[in-house]
Amino acid sequence: MIYQKNITLPKMTRGIHLITEFILNEITELKKFKMGIANLFIMHTSASLSINENFDNSVLNDMENFFLKLVPDNIPYFTHTDEGPDDMTSHIKASIFGASLNIPVKDGKLLLGQWQGIYLCEHRENSRPRTITITIMGE
Amino acid sequence: MIYQKNITLPKMTRGIHLITEFILNEITELKKFKMGIANLFIMHTSASLSINENFDNSVLNDMENFFLKLVPDNIPYFTHTDEGPDDMTSHIKASIFGASLNIPVKDGKLLLGQWQGIYLCEHRENSRPRTITITIMGE
Amino acid sequence: MIYQKNITLPKMTRGIHLITEFILNEITELKKFKMGIANLFIMHTSASLSINENFDNSVLNDMENFFLKLVPDNIPYFTHTDEGPDDMTSHIKASIFGASLNIPVKDGKLLLGQWQGIYLCEHRENSRPRTITITIMGE
Repeated sequence: MIYQKNITLPKMTRGIHLITEFILNEITELKKFKMGIANLFIMHTSASLSINENFDNSVLNDMENFFLKLVPDNIPYFTHTDEGPDDMTSHIKASIFGASLNIPVKDGKLLLGQWQGIYLCEHRENSRPRTITITIMGE
Repeated sequence: MIYQKNITLPKMTRGIHLITEFILNEITELKKFKMGIANLFIMHTSASLSINENFDNSVLNDMENFFLKLVPDNIPYFTHTDEGPDDMTSHIKASIFGASLNIPVKDGKLLLGQWQGIYLCEHRENSRPRTITITIMGE
Repeated sequence: MIYQKNITLPKMTRGIHLITEFILNEITELKKFKMGIANLFIMHTSASLSINENFDNSVLNDMENFFLKLVPDNIPYFTHTDEGPDDMTSHIKASIFGASLNIPVKDGKLLLGQWQGIYLCEHRENSRPRTITITIMGE
């Protein structure tokens, strides 16, 4: 059994956002799967998906601040800067975080740990709505 | 054909640990799959899975030391520090390494390269046993 | 329906390389899949796969230069250096980028975004041809 759907997130500010509930509301067909894998794939190169702590918003802020320093805008040797100082840094973060998540499915639910949630990591100042393809395979 | 199992690793010290043999011993049903994909998903936000060199223990130590410096404990601007100086740094490493692995399966075996092994990256000083969900899909 | 194939890339120089067309030419059976997931898995611990910008070569250069500085060769505390100053740094980059990609498939094509391409990240100076296992599951 396979299910596939494209969903578009609302435009979000630069930073890390918890989107677990938004995703779950969009994939009501998930409950038909007794067992399987859900793949979430972001179709962009300047935003990422990640799985991390779902409870305390301070994690979102601390993580954004850490990556702003690890991959700072305006690195002088960058040449890919047509779209601004956050252009190349967004691509680098996209490769560090990655474009897809693969989450086990059991009894109609994503088998996330108690403290795990799904993050959208928006790396651009001038962001736009992001599209995610969700593919669920199983039985 | 789908197979899914939760396994719990023994409590491990902070650092990088090779767990390939432990995993293989827990999924004896792997041998029934002629072809497919195995997904390993860690249900925690302060430990990670990774694939890397399986032979020389010096890789495990050097990697741990590198990430201790890249994401040092006690970064002064962190606010998510209730569980200690390795609280927020663990979440950051969890997003850098990632929560899941997806390994091809062939003829009843994980199709790892000759030098590839499965790592548990334990980011906490006061760790606890970690649970991994393994899902194998194929024929 | 499952399809699995090992492909070997030509030997590439240290750096980031766009390999989307090479991959697509090797998996002509992709067109038989109406819906599913393609897993690309690199069987090495000193090269990686990533998804990022497919248009402007400056991204490839800037990314390579960023990671050369983030994980510099000749870090003095490294002990795993038998194969040279890029030995341990290659393993670290392999864990940051990751060993596998999971891309949705629709109507016989990889469902990549308009600006997304597949990267081989070759971390070694003295590289060799790299083998990738491609597994496509779906209907």
